[in-house]
Amino acid sequence: MRNLKSLIEQMTLEEKAGLCSGDSFWRTKAIERLDIPAINLSDGPHGLRAQGEDQDHLGVNESKPATCFPTAAGLASSWSVALLEQLGAALGDEAQAEGLHVVLGPGANIKRSPLCGRNFEYFSEDPLLSSHLAAAHIRGTQSRGVGSSLKHFAANNQEHRRMSVDARVDERTLREIYLASFEYAVKETQPWTVMCAYNRLNGEYCSEHRRLLTDILRNEWGFEGYVVSDWAAVNERVAGLAAGMELEMPASGGERDAQIVAAVQNGQLEEAVLDVAVERLLRITFKAVDARLENASFDAEDHHQLARRIARESMVLLQNDGTLPLSNEHRVAVIGEFAERPRYQGGGSSHVNATRVEPLLEALETRGASFDYTKGFEIDRDAPDRQLEQKAAQRARDADVAVLCLGLPDRHESEGYDRTHLNLPANQLALIEAVTAAQPNTVVVLANGAPIVMPWAGQVSAILEGYLGGQAVGAALADLLYGEVSPSGKLAETFPQRLEDNPVHLNFPGEGDVVRYGEGIFVGYRYHDTQDVAPLFPFGHGLSYSRFDYANLTLSDDTFSGDGRLTVSLDVTNSGDCEASEIVQLYLSDQTQTVPVAAQALRGFDRVTLAPGATARVEMTLARRDFCWYDAERADWRLPTGAFEVRIGASSRDIRLSRSIEVHVDETPLPAIGRNTLLGDLQTHEGAARVLREHLADLAEELPMLNSLMDKGGDNDLMDAMGRYLPLRALISFSSFTEARLDALLKDLKALA
Amino acid sequence: MRNLKSLIEQMTLEEKAGLCSGDSFWRTKAIERLDIPAINLSDGPHGLRAQGEDQDHLGVNESKPATCFPTAAGLASSWSVALLEQLGAALGDEAQAEGLHVVLGPGANIKRSPLCGRNFEYFSEDPLLSSHLAAAHIRGTQSRGVGSSLKHFAANNQEHRRMSVDARVDERTLREIYLASFEYAVKETQPWTVMCAYNRLNGEYCSEHRRLLTDILRNEWGFEGYVVSDWAAVNERVAGLAAGMELEMPASGGERDAQIVAAVQNGQLEEAVLDVAVERLLRITFKAVDARLENASFDAEDHHQLARRIARESMVLLQNDGTLPLSNEHRVAVIGEFAERPRYQGGGSSHVNATRVEPLLEALETRGASFDYTKGFEIDRDAPDRQLEQKAAQRARDADVAVLCLGLPDRHESEGYDRTHLNLPANQLALIEAVTAAQPNTVVVLANGAPIVMPWAGQVSAILEGYLGGQAVGAALADLLYGEVSPSGKLAETFPQRLEDNPVHLNFPGEGDVVRYGEGIFVGYRYHDTQDVAPLFPFGHGLSYSRFDYANLTLSDDTFSGDGRLTVSLDVTNSGDCEASEIVQLYLSDQTQTVPVAAQALRGFDRVTLAPGATARVEMTLARRDFCWYDAERADWRLPTGAFEVRIGASSRDIRLSRSIEVHVDETPLPAIGRNTLLGDLQTHEGAARVLREHLADLAEELPMLNSLMDKGGDNDLMDAMGRYLPLRALISFSSFTEARLDALLKDLKALA
Repeated sequence: MRNLKSLIEQMTLEEKAGLCSGDSFWRTKAIERLDIPAINLSDGPHGLRAQGEDQDHLGVNESKPATCFPTAAGLASSWSVALLEQLGAALGDEAQAEGLHVVLGPGANIKRSPLCGRNFEYFSEDPLLSSHLAAAHIRGTQSRGVGSSLKHFAANNQEHRRMSVDARVDERTLREIYLASFEYAVKETQPWTVMCAYNRLNGEYCSEHRRLLTDILRNEWGFEGYVVSDWAAVNERVAGLAAGMELEMPASGGERDAQIVAAVQNGQLEEAVLDVAVERLLRITFKAVDARLENASFDAEDHHQLARRIARESMVLLQNDGTLPLSNEHRVAVIGEFAERPRYQGGGSSHVNATRVEPLLEALETRGASFDYTKGFEIDRDAPDRQLEQKAAQRARDADVAVLCLGLPDRHESEGYDRTHLNLPANQLALIEAVTAAQPNTVVVLANGAPIVMPWAGQVSAILEGYLGGQAVGAALADLLYGEVSPSGKLAETFPQRLEDNPVHLNFPGEGDVVRYGEGIFVGYRYHDTQDVAPLFPFGHGLSYSRFDYANLTLSDDTFSGDGRLTVSLDVTNSGDCEASEIVQLYLSDQTQTVPVAAQALRGFDRVTLAPGATARVEMTLARRDFCWYDAERADWRLPTGAFEVRIGASSRDIRLSRSIEVHVDETPLPAIGRNTLLGDLQTHEGAARVLREHLADLAEELPMLNSLMDKGGDNDLMDAMGRYLPLRALISFSSFTEARLDALLKDLKALA
Repeated sequence: MRNLKSLIEQMTLEEKAGLCSGDSFWRTKAIERLDIPAINLSDGPHGLRAQGEDQDHLGVNESKPATCFPTAAGLASSWSVALLEQLGAALGDEAQAEGLHVVLGPGANIKRSPLCGRNFEYFSEDPLLSSHLAAAHIRGTQSRGVGSSLKHFAANNQEHRRMSVDARVDERTLREIYLASFEYAVKETQPWTVMCAYNRLNGEYCSEHRRLLTDILRNEWGFEGYVVSDWAAVNERVAGLAAGMELEMPASGGERDAQIVAAVQNGQLEEAVLDVAVERLLRITFKAVDARLENASFDAEDHHQLARRIARESMVLLQNDGTLPLSNEHRVAVIGEFAERPRYQGGGSSHVNATRVEPLLEALETRGASFDYTKGFEIDRDAPDRQLEQKAAQRARDADVAVLCLGLPDRHESEGYDRTHLNLPANQLALIEAVTAAQPNTVVVLANGAPIVMPWAGQVSAILEGYLGGQAVGAALADLLYGEVSPSGKLAETFPQRLEDNPVHLNFPGEGDVVRYGEGIFVGYRYHDTQDVAPLFPFGHGLSYSRFDYANLTLSDDTFSGDGRLTVSLDVTNSGDCEASEIVQLYLSDQTQTVPVAAQALRGFDRVTLAPGATARVEMTLARRDFCWYDAERADWRLPTGAFEVRIGASSRDIRLSRSIEVHVDETPLPAIGRNTLLGDLQTHEGAARVLREHLADLAEELPMLNSLMDKGGDNDLMDAMGRYLPLRALISFSSFTEARLDALLKDLKALA
C-alpha cells in the first residue's frame, strides 16, 4: 500500500491542481518526479473508441479497431444480467489489450422521452432494470482490472441544449426514478469513476452540484471513486472541485489549474479540499496502473461471436402471425438498403471502428438461404423513389416472403440532438405501402435506437425490432429469422401509439434553458398503466417461437412489516416446441395509495432458458425499499401501511399471476409540528389527537369545524373538511384562541416526538 | 376631499395597527374619536350572505334573505358581458339595501381541474373569458357605489389542503393563465379590494407574497385599492403587512394588532409602511361610506325575474336529437327529486338564503304543462332504490317524453373539499338505465357546478346542462325545455370523456402540501386541442333551437407588427326558425411556434341575438398582447415573428372560418450575454454572429463544431448540433481558447446591447 497522504505532502500546490484536469483529450497528467503515472480513458459503453493522440477527438471515425457490440437499447431488451457481465468483461479485455485504464460507460440515464437522440446508449425507462443492467456491465468490466465510468450523473435525459439546459425535477421523482437508476449500480459495484452530466439540475450545473456529487453520491450511497466531468462539462472549476468533481476532462490548457491555485492562495478554497480530491484521484490511478496486464490481447473473432450471441438475445419479436421463422425453402425477397449497409450502432462519442461488420446479406449467403435482394430505398435520402419501390414490389410479388429492412438513418437519431417526431423517413413509409400491396407475407426488421410509431403495423405479418445490433447484426438477424434460436428479448421501454401519448410530450424538450419534469414519477409504462393509455407495444413485451405457462405463485409470507426479504416463487413451463428463453417480470401494485403512485412498478425480473416441456422454479425477492415511496418532506423512504398486489407478468400488460400482500407499519409518524401543521394531519396520530383534544376542549362549542376532532363529526362535510385542512394558527382567526395558547399547544405536541 | 395624511398623523400607533384587522367577522374597525367609520363586508359572488352579528358565521344557513342568482359556472356559459354587468348591479343594489359596503366576489380562479369543489364559483378554464366576465361583474357592482373584492389571488385552484398547500407554478404559466385571469379585471375596473388566497404560491403564502401583492398587483397592474385576506388566510401578520396585505379578516382578538405594534416598536417594521397601508384602507373606507345610499331598497320580484333571465341564458344545451323543445301537447314524465328540491346553488361561504325558490315542478304547473312527477331517486342517498326506479320507468313508459332531473348532491360538490371522481351518484346512474330502457325519448336536465362524465350520453335524446341555476332555476328550465326561448349558453370549460383525460389528473391535488402545475400552460382545451384528446363536449360548445351561418371574414390587415389593433369582422346569420343568440368565438393559432404554445387560444368573443333570417356584422379586435407569450427569462411579453391563423368558431372544435396573418417583429433580441450563452443563440443575432466570427476565426480549423458559424456547416449534423448548443465557456475545454479571450469576447458582445 502506497502512503497517499505522504505522497500528497510532497506535492506542490501546482502539481495537485494539475492532477485535477487532463493532460490531453484522453489522458490524465503524470508527475514523473513523484512516480505518479498517467492513465488512459476511452469512450465505449458498447465498444472501445481508443484514439491515438493524433486522431480527431471530436470526430467519430478515427479510432483503433474494436468490437462493436449492440448498444444499450438492445442490450437492455435481453434483461440478462449474465449477458451484460459478459459484455462488460469483453470490454475490459479489449481495454487491457489497448492499454486503457477506464472505459466511459455504462450510461444509466432514464429514457424520459423516446425523442432523446442518445436513448440508444441508455437502457430503459425503468430505474430498476436500468440500474441492475448497469451494475452487471460495471461488474464485468471491473472484473478485468479496468475501471468503469457510470454516466451521465444525473437527469441528462435529452440532447437538446444539453450543455445548458436546467432539468427541474422534484425531489421524489429524482429519487424514485432518475437517481434510482444510478443508486443500485453505485452501491453494488463501486464504479471507479462516475461521470457528471452536462446539464443543470434544479438550477445548478451537475459538474458543481454539491448535493448530487457529495451529499448523495458519497455520503448517502458510499461512493469511493472519483467524479470525472463529461467532456467540457465544467462551468466554474473551483466550485466544481468544492462540490466533489475531482477530474476535469479534457485538458484546459492549464487555465483551470491556475484557477484552482489562485483559489487556494486567496483563501477561496481550502487546500484540504484539494488534498482530499487528489487522494481520491491517486487511489484510482494507482489501482488502475496496478491492475494493468502486460501483453494483454483479445481474440477478435471470439468477440465477434459474442457480439452475435448478445445481439440475438437482445432483439425483440414485436409481432408475428406465424410467418416467422422462415425456412430455407422459402424464396425470400430481402428489401431495404440496411440489409447491405446495416445501421448497427449510433452516432457520437460511442462510435466504434468495428473489427468487422456482418450485414444481413452476408449472413444469409453464409447460411445458404434462398433470397434475392433489392435496395428498395436509399438510406441517405428521405424522399420516396418510385422506381426503387416498384422494383421492390416486383421482387416481393415474386417471392414467398418479403423481409423489409427498415430503420432510422444516422442523421435522424444521434448523440447531440433529439428527434422531433417518431416516424420512419417518408421513402420507407412509401416502400412499406408498395411492398405490402404486392406481398401479404411481409416481415419488417428494424434498425433503430429508440421507438418509432408504426401506423403500418396492421399491414405486416411480423416485426422484429433489431435495435442497433452491433457488428454481428446480420448473423444475429439470420439466426432469429430462420429459427436457429427463438427470439427472447422484451422491450425495456414503451412503444407509444403516437408521440402525443408519451407523458412528457408537452414538457419536452423544454423552453429555452428550462425543462420541467412535469410528469413527475409517471414516466413510460408508469404513465400508460396509471392513465390507461394503450401503448403500441407495452413495456416488457416480446414474443417467442415457443410459449410459456406460469403457475404456482407463492409468497413466503402474506404480510410484510419491512424487515427481511419476501420470496416470490413460481413455475414457468416451456409448453411450446422449441428451446427458448422467457423473461419473467414481477410488478408491485400499491392498492391503498396513501400518496399518488403508479398503477404498478417493476420490482424484479428473471430470465430462464428452457427446453420444450421443461419447467423451472423462478424465485425473486422483495425487500422494504420495493414497497416504499420517497417522502421528500422527511427526506426518507416511507413504507406505507396498506394492501399491495404482487403481479407476475410476461409483460407489463400481460399479467399472468397475482397475489395480495398486506404491509403493516407499526407506527404512524408524527407530522412535522409548527404553526401551519394541519389539524387533520395531527388527528392521524393518536398522541397528537389527545393533546389537541385537551388544549381545544373549550373551543368545541364555538367551532363546528372541531366536531370531527371531538368525535362529533360526520353530519357536515364542509365543517369536517375545514377542520381537516385547518392550520393550527388559523384557530386564532376563527375563535378566541390566542398566540400564547398556540405556543403552549405546540410545545406539548413537540414533546411527543 | 379628506386629508388622509393629516388624519393618519393624528392616529396612535395602536389605532393604525387596529385598522389592519376586522372588528368582528364582517365589519372593520371604527375610530370614533377621529370620525373614522367602520364598513361592512359580505360574501356573495352570486347573491348576498349578509349576516347579523349574532348569526353563525361559519355556518351556511343563517343570513338575511337575498336573491340567489346562478353561480359563476353558469354565468360564464352566457359569455355575456352585459348580463354579468346586470348581475353585478343587482348585487350592488341589494348591498345598498342591506347596508353593506363591499361584496366579496367575483372569483377569477381558473378551473384547473374539474374536481375542484369550488369550481361552481369560478368562471372558466380560459383566462380571457374569466377575466372579462369578472370585469363585467365588478363594473356592475361598483356602478352602484358598492365595492367588489376580486378573489382569490392567486392560484387557489383546489380545496384540498387549501390553507396550506403550495402551488408550484412556473412563471410563464402563472402569467399566461393564472394571473391573466385577474389582470384584465384589475386593470379595467379597479376593484376596491382584492382578496388574497389561502394557499401558498411557489413557497410563500399568498397573504404575505410581496411579489404578488405589491410588485405585480400594484406596481405592474396599477391596483389602487387594498388587499384583504381570505378569512383566516393570515400566516405571519407583520410579514403580510410588509408584503402589501392591508386588511386581515376576520378579527383576531387584538392578537395581530399587538404584533404590528410590537414590530414597529422594535424596528422590524417601518411605521411608514403601516401608514401607507392605513391610507389605502381609509381611502376605500371613506369612498364606501360616501357612496352609501340612505333608504335604498330592491324589488325582490324584479330580481327574481332577472335571475330567471340570467339562468336561461346561462344553461347549455349539450345534445339534442330534436326531442327538444317540448310542447304542451307532450305528456311528460318528470323524474328526479331535483325537480322538486332543486340544487340551485353551492355549499360554503357563497350560500344564499334565497328570497324564494322556484322549482321545475312549480314552473311547469304555472305554464300549464301536461306532466306527471315521480321522485326516481333520493338526493340524500347514493344507493340505488329499485322500487323508485321501477316506478319511474313505468311513468316514463306511459309518457311521450321523460325529463330526468339529475345532478350532484351538495355533499358531492362543495367549497372546502374536492371531488375524487366525475361520476353521478350510483342511484342516478341506475335510474338512467331504467328510464331509458322504458322510454326512448329521454331528456336529461343537469344540476351540477362542474363537469361530470356521461357514459350514458349515447342513450339519451337530449342533455340540458343547467349548472347551478339560482332561485329561478325551475322557471328558466321550463322556458328552455318548452322553447319559450332558445338555449344559447356555451361551455366555458371542457367536459372530458374520462377524468384521466384531464391534463392535471396526475398532478392533482398534489402530494402532501405540494401541488405541481406540471401541465404548465396546457389547461383545459389548450391541452385537448394540442394533444388531440377528444373531449366529451368541447370548450365553447352549446346548441340552439335555431342555427347560424358564418361568412365574410375580413381582417383589417394581413400583417401585424405589434402596433395598434387589428379588426376582425364577419357576418353571422340566423338561418333557423326562431329568435336565438349565438356566441361567436375568436381563436388565434400560432403556426410558427418559436416556443411551445397551445394549438389555439381564445382571443375574443361576442354574443349576438338575431331574429330568424337576420344577419349581424360581428366585430372583434386583436392587439399585441393577444399574439404574445410570456418570456420568463426576460420577464416580459414577447411578440414572435411568424404566421398566425385567425379562427372563428362556434366552439373550439367547430371552426367555421379562418384567415392567415403574418406577424413580423423588426428586431431579434440579443440573448442575455454570459459565459454560458450558447453559440447557437448568438448566431440568431446578426451583430453577435459577426462578433463571434471575428473572435473565433482562428479556431475554425481546430473545431469542426464552428462550421455552421463560419458558414461551412451542413455536412455533419452532430458537429452542427454541438456548435449550436455550445456554451461559450466550453470553447476553452475544446480548443486553445482562453479565459482572457473569453472575457474579451464577452465584452464585445455586451457592447451590442
